[in-house]
Amino acid sequence: MKALQYVEVGRPPELREVPIPEPGPGEVRVKVTAAGACHSDSFVMGLSAEQFAQFGYPLPMTLGHEGVGVVDKRGEGVDAVQEGDAVAIYGPQGCGRCYECAQGKENYCPRAAELGITPPGLGSDGSMAEYVLVRNQRHLTPLGDLDPVRNVALTDAGLTPYHAIKTSLPKLVPGTVAVVIGAGGLGHVAIQILREITPATVIALDVSEDKLALARDVGAHHAFASDEEAAGKIRDAVGGAKVAAVFDFVAIQPTVDLGLSLLGTESDLVLVGVGATKADIGMLARPYDSTIRSPYWGSRSELIEVLELARAGRVSVEVETFSLDEAPEAYRRLHEGTLRGRAVVVP
Amino acid sequence: MKALQYVEVGRPPELREVPIPEPGPGEVRVKVTAAGACHSDSFVMGLSAEQFAQFGYPLPMTLGHEGVGVVDKRGEGVDAVQEGDAVAIYGPQGCGRCYECAQGKENYCPRAAELGITPPGLGSDGSMAEYVLVRNQRHLTPLGDLDPVRNVALTDAGLTPYHAIKTSLPKLVPGTVAVVIGAGGLGHVAIQILREITPATVIALDVSEDKLALARDVGAHHAFASDEEAAGKIRDAVGGAKVAAVFDFVAIQPTVDLGLSLLGTESDLVLVGVGATKADIGMLARPYDSTIRSPYWGSRSELIEVLELARAGRVSVEVETFSLDEAPEAYRRLHEGTLRGRAVVVP
Amino acid sequence: MKALQYVEVGRPPELREVPIPEPGPGEVRVKVTAAGACHSDSFVMGLSAEQFAQFGYPLPMTLGHEGVGVVDKRGEGVDAVQEGDAVAIYGPQGCGRCYECAQGKENYCPRAAELGITPPGLGSDGSMAEYVLVRNQRHLTPLGDLDPVRNVALTDAGLTPYHAIKTSLPKLVPGTVAVVIGAGGLGHVAIQILREITPATVIALDVSEDKLALARDVGAHHAFASDEEAAGKIRDAVGGAKVAAVFDFVAIQPTVDLGLSLLGTESDLVLVGVGATKADIGMLARPYDSTIRSPYWGSRSELIEVLELARAGRVSVEVETFSLDEAPEAYRRLHEGTLRGRAVVVP
Amino acid sequence: MKALQYVEVGRPPELREVPIPEPGPGEVRVKVTAAGACHSDSFVMGLSAEQFAQFGYPLPMTLGHEGVGVVDKRGEGVDAVQEGDAVAIYGPQGCGRCYECAQGKENYCPRAAELGITPPGLGSDGSMAEYVLVRNQRHLTPLGDLDPVRNVALTDAGLTPYHAIKTSLPKLVPGTVAVVIGAGGLGHVAIQILREITPATVIALDVSEDKLALARDVGAHHAFASDEEAAGKIRDAVGGAKVAAVFDFVAIQPTVDLGLSLLGTESDLVLVGVGATKADIGMLARPYDSTIRSPYWGSRSELIEVLELARAGRVSVEVETFSLDEAPEAYRRLHEGTLRGRAVVVP
Repeated sequence: MKALQYVEVGRPPELREVPIPEPGPGEVRVKVTAAGACHSDSFVMGLSAEQFAQFGYPLPMTLGHEGVGVVDKRGEGVDAVQEGDAVAIYGPQGCGRCYECAQGKENYCPRAAELGITPPGLGSDGSMAEYVLVRNQRHLTPLGDLDPVRNVALTDAGLTPYHAIKTSLPKLVPGTVAVVIGAGGLGHVAIQILREITPATVIALDVSEDKLALARDVGAHHAFASDEEAAGKIRDAVGGAKVAAVFDFVAIQPTVDLGLSLLGTESDLVLVGVGATKADIGMLARPYDSTIRSPYWGSRSELIEVLELARAGRVSVEVETFSLDEAPEAYRRLHEGTLRGRAVVVP
Repeated sequence: MKALQYVEVGRPPELREVPIPEPGPGEVRVKVTAAGACHSDSFVMGLSAEQFAQFGYPLPMTLGHEGVGVVDKRGEGVDAVQEGDAVAIYGPQGCGRCYECAQGKENYCPRAAELGITPPGLGSDGSMAEYVLVRNQRHLTPLGDLDPVRNVALTDAGLTPYHAIKTSLPKLVPGTVAVVIGAGGLGHVAIQILREITPATVIALDVSEDKLALARDVGAHHAFASDEEAAGKIRDAVGGAKVAAVFDFVAIQPTVDLGLSLLGTESDLVLVGVGATKADIGMLARPYDSTIRSPYWGSRSELIEVLELARAGRVSVEVETFSLDEAPEAYRRLHEGTLRGRAVVVP
Repeated sequence: MKALQYVEVGRPPELREVPIPEPGPGEVRVKVTAAGACHSDSFVMGLSAEQFAQFGYPLPMTLGHEGVGVVDKRGEGVDAVQEGDAVAIYGPQGCGRCYECAQGKENYCPRAAELGITPPGLGSDGSMAEYVLVRNQRHLTPLGDLDPVRNVALTDAGLTPYHAIKTSLPKLVPGTVAVVIGAGGLGHVAIQILREITPATVIALDVSEDKLALARDVGAHHAFASDEEAAGKIRDAVGGAKVAAVFDFVAIQPTVDLGLSLLGTESDLVLVGVGATKADIGMLARPYDSTIRSPYWGSRSELIEVLELARAGRVSVEVETFSLDEAPEAYRRLHEGTLRGRAVVVP
Repeated sequence: MKALQYVEVGRPPELREVPIPEPGPGEVRVKVTAAGACHSDSFVMGLSAEQFAQFGYPLPMTLGHEGVGVVDKRGEGVDAVQEGDAVAIYGPQGCGRCYECAQGKENYCPRAAELGITPPGLGSDGSMAEYVLVRNQRHLTPLGDLDPVRNVALTDAGLTPYHAIKTSLPKLVPGTVAVVIGAGGLGHVAIQILREITPATVIALDVSEDKLALARDVGAHHAFASDEEAAGKIRDAVGGAKVAAVFDFVAIQPTVDLGLSLLGTESDLVLVGVGATKADIGMLARPYDSTIRSPYWGSRSELIEVLELARAGRVSVEVETFSLDEAPEAYRRLHEGTLRGRAVVVP
């Protein structure tokens, strides 16, 4: 079968012919109907050889940590899914037995690394192929009649902001403001989720006029350039209303500094973008009980919730589609920042 | 192997010779080191043929929904446990994939019944035998070096009150009162949990002097006869402090009426005992926002939490031990109400 | 000044001339700009002399527990409001110092009764007059530039459903269903709140076609006749989705029975309507951990939240306006059930 | 009357003769029975003239933000307390009407500064005197028969750690570890609160052997020197258990760095000590969803809860008593770090 693989550090991903995988006991083979391309793939492929080695991912590796498809073949002992079931693949897989996994928070499994368990596309072969092997049937969430292409990105670009927002939900009461920095693949879904499950005023910030237009299209109450005037514009727009949460999908020092400057008492700065930055902390440096945190992906039940939002027509992902042959082009466009919404590969 | 089975409706359980089960793909055979006897077994064996038929349990059925043991043989695809691992069996098993199961709340799986999934000992063969077959490795919680006999009952008699209490935890602030009705197998563990994880004043009610003595031994601040004077004695003991939660492990009309009479605004009446009773409800009948609910068993992560309480020496179960041969006697004593704490069968 | 007063048990309320009240130390006189008429007024005026005596309300009593106005005169020691401030009056006033009041949950103050503190219009003189005296400045919530007539009802008809919904909020996740029984004064606001702060599918039930039309107008996804076919229609409309909460604004035995029949595991039956009914409770009678409760009005911070929803244009109350002279007519129409939305008296 | 006042920046506090204050409308004069000396007083008195000016505190100012006493004289309109009532003074006073104050979270009132509202002893005259004036009766929490001297410090040294812990409470499940850095005035109360309201294993760190001994005396499971070996010792003591929260009462760069190094996924670093430090933040720098925050004092209902803990004998403060004449000495000992527990001045 054809698969888009990362073959060697520093080289662009390549379309290659690889064997169709066979499911062992407990495993499930899924025929891919859509796979999403994500900034974290770019991040991984942008690492130096030394940095990449720290992640310990074997190469070549089929890309694609966002995947949906149809159950194609079941290994022994698989009893909870049937051939032909439309499924979404839960990516941040864990051991299944620890305290976190026992709550479905496999994204926070403390044992996954030591057990060599990695998400498809981020350590093991992913969904940018005709078929993908899934470790366990519990990682197959029913997709039902949701359109694969329009919804595949919800498995990461939907689930990640949903999880980020859900933790801050009790703070987003009427009269508060939520700020989304970066209105790209994840950010434009975050805006929709905020509009649908909170009464907060939603403000989007981005450096690109196209992204700001997209932000407005998907429901942001306000959308401003992410620059030194942003804080002032926000205050003009909302008066004394409290910015109860900032979701920063960029997470570089300037956006982090901007986010910190917006916080009020008990507000949350949520760094969703991949990065490492610096901050002054402590009682004399930050508003009381404001928090800083960096979530990662989401839990199994949160994926179900996100798909239910889509089923109710409350979130939709802006997508551009590519064939497997065109997949390298998708990553180039992603890297350039010229995609509107999400790149989806249809094998 | 020997197994204590319920063979025919209305007949006492019998010790029988049955084949040692073989684990299929995904299944695990556990060599039982201890199994607990529980009132719900008695409840089931006390049903008429007609009532029993509604539950749909096949007969003969090996009893025992509280079980711990050692992994003995693994079916194909089992990779997260090793032979020799000491494990506690999570009883209220679900489908593993629905919204509830995706949070480990398999006790509330809405699909278990339709899929024919039942707890060991309550619909499928349980732990009152030399070996028991467990459906899936996720139902095996690490027991570590906890003593099997002293801790087996935590899988139900610990987990059930823990789950009941945990939902009411935010209400049990300093200055409040928690009332436990019924200081038997579950109730005497409830008292300990309340003492360890809440600052509430704990009051136990029971009709038996022995049980009241046990209640005091395990930490109840007060223990009173469960009669028409109980409400007055409670008020004398705690003054105007609010009874924030009543945990009723008996759940017959008189205890429910007593419990209802104790509630204040926003208090919880938690009916843990198996039963069906009546209540006046509504704004003119009950204190504002007081709640009535009936929990069932607990979630996977709550079982881990209960075992951690035991590991820290914060809960212990009063037990009397019996061999498999003596198991029928254990049930007779349970039925009589003459056990102090829990009956544990050691195969 | 003119005031609409309940003068004698069993007689309709009358417009009377009474002295303009003078604020004592700590008190505030408010010039009323709008006052709402509510079913609970009708309930109180429908009580027999014997029943009424139990409430201990002195007569004559000016009606009106929903009130907004402008600060007119301040007693000594009042420093947090200024003459001319537009304010909404928080009705369910408490002692201000107990544990509940220390959280602004004055609606649940356990000391109010013993201290003789009652809401304006429900025990002390209310807002159906040219002026009303408010006990303490903390009961004056800033109204800002919100229209008094269109928003006065939020102080009860908004706050009460908001509080009822807020407690159930964590259960109203994507994919769940919320049922509102009774789409009148409170119910039609409940529908809007549910749409704005939850992702649940909202279903309204009522016996009146007009109210069902109103329900659809304000955002209910479905609106069905509240009869024996309602449960079936709901299931047809939502498939297997869980009814996570039923808000019953009628709370008579048939609606309560209907509500109970809709509950799933962990669902809430919330009896907002004034009443006393019966229910079977316990593990064998109800879905596991489903709850029954009866909230009352709401907290101080919840009133602020409701007003913020209005400020953001997310809830609006359907009103019919009446002059003080026409106020008796407003109550007659309310009693007949021929109002669309809420009756508001403008002095 | 005698009062201990901070008179001029840089000079030690002095005992001075000042007029007995008269309560205006709404105000209450309290005869002080005990007042606590706190590190934040030292912090304020250690500021340079320039720094001090930023706080805007008028001088001379009577010290003492921890105070208990007896209601001595009531201003007009005061109706909820009686002369002779024993009361604890809630210090972090706010406007009483904003969203935060409406929940009793006056410590987070966003309007206090602009309105010139400051805590007694931190901006207005405090409790280190024979009498103190309290702004509003709502700031007087019933003390009941609690011993004034032994409990006065709970108004800050109890309330502050209680609030800090309460926010992290849901994370402190069985099997987790809580670390307290700094076992002094606040820290040794934190240890007790953690023991009483959580099932966590409690580990204390301090640089002083005396403080470590105190930590063990009040219930810490382990107490280690706060140095570069601390992290290793903690891991040896608790194995793989997760440090779910670190409460840092010192909050200087070395303790913050140590705290950060202990965090796991979803853990909390809570900086209670007054300070400003630096941290690397972001997904690549910190465990997922671990948080950093700096709480301040506590809410009105939390003060009630703390006093209830004391009433139940669950927390007690180690105190050394001083007369008003000896009060300057108390601050000197506090500054030297030679107090065991808290310095309390008895006028």
